[in-house]
Amino acid sequence: MSDFFDRHRPTLLSAVAALARREYWTPYPEVPTGKVYGETARAEGEVAFAALTGQDFDLPGHPGTSRAGAEVSPFGPRLGIRYPAATPDALIAAAAAAAPALAAASPEARVGACLEALARLNRQSFLIAHATMHTTGQAFAMAFQAGGPHAQDRGLEAVAMAWAEMTRFAARARWEKPQGKAAPIVVEKTWTLRPAGIALTIGCNTFPTWNSYPGLFASLATGNPVIVKPHPRAILPLALSVRVLRAVLAEAGLPADAVLLAVDEPGAEITKALATLPEVKLIDYTGSSAFGAWLRDNARQAQLFTEETGVNSIVIAATGDLDGMCANLAFALSLYSGQMCTTPQNIYIPAGGIETDRGHKSFDEVAAALVAAIDALLADPARAESICGALANPATRARVEAAAARGRVLRQGAAKGEPGPLLLAVSADDPVAGEECFGPVAFLIAASDADAAIGQAAGLAAAKGAITAALYDTDAARIARAEAAFAGAGVNLSINLTGNIYVNQSAAFSDFHVTGANPAGNASLTDTAFVATRFRRVMSRRMAA
Amino acid sequence: MSDFFDRHRPTLLSAVAALARREYWTPYPEVPTGKVYGETARAEGEVAFAALTGQDFDLPGHPGTSRAGAEVSPFGPRLGIRYPAATPDALIAAAAAAAPALAAASPEARVGACLEALARLNRQSFLIAHATMHTTGQAFAMAFQAGGPHAQDRGLEAVAMAWAEMTRFAARARWEKPQGKAAPIVVEKTWTLRPAGIALTIGCNTFPTWNSYPGLFASLATGNPVIVKPHPRAILPLALSVRVLRAVLAEAGLPADAVLLAVDEPGAEITKALATLPEVKLIDYTGSSAFGAWLRDNARQAQLFTEETGVNSIVIAATGDLDGMCANLAFALSLYSGQMCTTPQNIYIPAGGIETDRGHKSFDEVAAALVAAIDALLADPARAESICGALANPATRARVEAAAARGRVLRQGAAKGEPGPLLLAVSADDPVAGEECFGPVAFLIAASDADAAIGQAAGLAAAKGAITAALYDTDAARIARAEAAFAGAGVNLSINLTGNIYVNQSAAFSDFHVTGANPAGNASLTDTAFVATRFRRVMSRRMAA
Repeated sequence: MSDFFDRHRPTLLSAVAALARREYWTPYPEVPTGKVYGETARAEGEVAFAALTGQDFDLPGHPGTSRAGAEVSPFGPRLGIRYPAATPDALIAAAAAAAPALAAASPEARVGACLEALARLNRQSFLIAHATMHTTGQAFAMAFQAGGPHAQDRGLEAVAMAWAEMTRFAARARWEKPQGKAAPIVVEKTWTLRPAGIALTIGCNTFPTWNSYPGLFASLATGNPVIVKPHPRAILPLALSVRVLRAVLAEAGLPADAVLLAVDEPGAEITKALATLPEVKLIDYTGSSAFGAWLRDNARQAQLFTEETGVNSIVIAATGDLDGMCANLAFALSLYSGQMCTTPQNIYIPAGGIETDRGHKSFDEVAAALVAAIDALLADPARAESICGALANPATRARVEAAAARGRVLRQGAAKGEPGPLLLAVSADDPVAGEECFGPVAFLIAASDADAAIGQAAGLAAAKGAITAALYDTDAARIARAEAAFAGAGVNLSINLTGNIYVNQSAAFSDFHVTGANPAGNASLTDTAFVATRFRRVMSRRMAA
Repeated sequence: MSDFFDRHRPTLLSAVAALARREYWTPYPEVPTGKVYGETARAEGEVAFAALTGQDFDLPGHPGTSRAGAEVSPFGPRLGIRYPAATPDALIAAAAAAAPALAAASPEARVGACLEALARLNRQSFLIAHATMHTTGQAFAMAFQAGGPHAQDRGLEAVAMAWAEMTRFAARARWEKPQGKAAPIVVEKTWTLRPAGIALTIGCNTFPTWNSYPGLFASLATGNPVIVKPHPRAILPLALSVRVLRAVLAEAGLPADAVLLAVDEPGAEITKALATLPEVKLIDYTGSSAFGAWLRDNARQAQLFTEETGVNSIVIAATGDLDGMCANLAFALSLYSGQMCTTPQNIYIPAGGIETDRGHKSFDEVAAALVAAIDALLADPARAESICGALANPATRARVEAAAARGRVLRQGAAKGEPGPLLLAVSADDPVAGEECFGPVAFLIAASDADAAIGQAAGLAAAKGAITAALYDTDAARIARAEAAFAGAGVNLSINLTGNIYVNQSAAFSDFHVTGANPAGNASLTDTAFVATRFRRVMSRRMAA
């Protein structure tokens, strides 16, 4: 028995408390500095990443008789890393063999292993950052934060929520029922936690660790062996994570095969075969609604936790800080070239213009101010690359280029291979604005007035899903109406953000990511529902001696 | 604004605390005595019930232009009560109209109304008892307890769980992120609870209130209008409950149509039409697995919480109290003529017999002792009726009569119209013992040894579902193996029960009823998962002023 739980218990208890308070909290510093991570950490991370490229990836004891892997960095080179590749049946067999020992382990043992793994992953944040950068196209600073500490936050959040839920009810009770003047009936009861079964975590191309850690850690902490199925373009960050987890599990006296890696290559994906195996009882999925619908129809043996497609909107109704608003939105739209699930796409502006601190501005003047802010933000090529990164998938560039023909071009941006978003003016009823167009593109839409803009944005969120919404307004009554409308549509709303906080950002332990209340996903990171059905309680009771 | 919440707050807080401790607790006395409920309560309940029969049932303001209702007491008379009958579309329209005000109400307002309704239902326990007796066939004492205080317990449990979950995370937070030497970023966040949609509670014939209150109160407390769809043979207990709830809602300033009654008659059920309407987002269902499967396939727009068919087993491996065991099982098998979802059906006994405090007993001797105990228990006709009640549904008698031909009859009982169960000896591989045979029948099955018996019982529970299991044994190591086997099968186990506590009994605030971990149901009364997805959290955040 390891001392992992005792070692990390203070972190766990702080995390549980933070969940309830929803204030700022994290144990994993987000700044990639030597002061925190050690002066040699940055260089070591780069060397470690380089040493992995062009090699077979070592996963001791992992099943699989062949190798697979065809990752290409969005910044250019092929990674040339070959991972152990096992068939779905072999993965299930290994997971099933690991299941009894994992289920029999105490919550403390499983949670302790999860916490130790997160601590080790934190120390590997520079390596994870390079792995994330060269699979997702994120610029280095973002790859460090989103792939490292912020992903670890979301993992810890899931572990803390699982711990809180596993320990929510007494594990033993003495039930003593009065019988009037007769002796009471006394029954001794104990409850065992029974995991749901084998879990499958299906990762995405853009945030392989951030979006996968919650389901992975929630399932593992609650006793379910996890098969981690990375996107074929973004394997390495999760392969590194699986390696850390397997090592920690073994040190904790738990089966290493409680965490497995399912590797495939583009065009030869094994996801459907894995997801429909009867032993798979939990699936965490991040990706398109099209594949989400396929899972709903075909993987009905499993509980499904999803984050899917959506259309995020901004409503610009008025502002007391035109420059601050434009600067804030310029960054929000440019960050990682619009490839965040939280990036706004549709920008609704009253056709008659808006009131600002610089006087009334027409629709076109607001649009021009936004274009100017983006251009200014991205004028320096090095800075532009540090914000925009690269496109993760060639299909994204083609999509943006095709979109340019669909409206009045206000800014070419990515449609011409330049940094930052394509901005298009389109009409409110244009179908192009009624669907997600993933990538660096935003549609400016003239609405009859601000309330109509709010109604259109909220209606679209309810119908097609949305993870974020933003509002700029100075009218308190209208702000209240917008809050009600977006709450009804199940979308989180950010109001009048300026400065160094953006609508795209979602902080663990405070912001619930995805509400589960519109088509953009049925799961929320990390609420109680995210963990509560991953295990069940079974009682044994007997007469007291 | 009513003071319901403040009035019942101590009860609510005690209930929340009881949920965590799982010890004995209830605010609703189960003894039908005048000392508790008032010396005139019993007589008034009987008079009130009689006054309802043969009349139109009054539900002020309830939608519906026609009347329906064809209940017949299992003890003989037609009830002749005609309820307001509304079409599914009219019910949905009324529920949808009530939804915004219910959603906008505070958790305190909704929970307060639920608690007041439970308190009033408790005061009507004698009326509810007569209504339950004459729709389910339960004998009076059981109808009082299960239809009254025990159902109220389960309703309160759901309200307490919903309250705990709605208040689990802060409703407001000030998020203050350090920025080194610069001023921190400060964001004010508020969260709104967003209900899932319209809820449908589908009641059963045998426990109309006990099985319906949890879903009904969980949905209502979390802000979802509820359409209560009773079994067409057991409308009155739920119609009375709906009447109380509608009156309380109106007094609380909430829409009465937040709780509606959907009445139909045998052969003209409207359940399928209701369950598949797109506005229905939550369904609580108690009944057969066949209809449960239909709902899974056809009501996919809704979250489904179920209690379904199962086969409960007893394993008799050894006993230190043969008489106590037989007396206990005699009552467990006879109570309400085996029409509880918790009643054992299959009794596994080693073919070579068992060790007891009266020496070794052969399979046939154990069977004979059990038959003798049942016969002794039910020898007095009045006592027999007070234990067995009547069969709720004529199909049950036909099923038991047909079963009598399927094995070696050890006791005729209900198969000959006499009190208590039909007991049949059948082989382990007999298909008749591999399915639920609902009603007063039990199968005695010879197993090769005690461990084989445990394996067969647990395997059947995993495959076909089970809500209860019982074990009699004196071997600590084998008991531990049985606990592991039944935990793996997701079934609650009672060990060596004798005296006045029975495997069928499930106490609110302590026993989780149904684990959700085998085919006997996907929901557990009442764990976190039962309430957690009935609403979602939506945030509004803005820069701090």
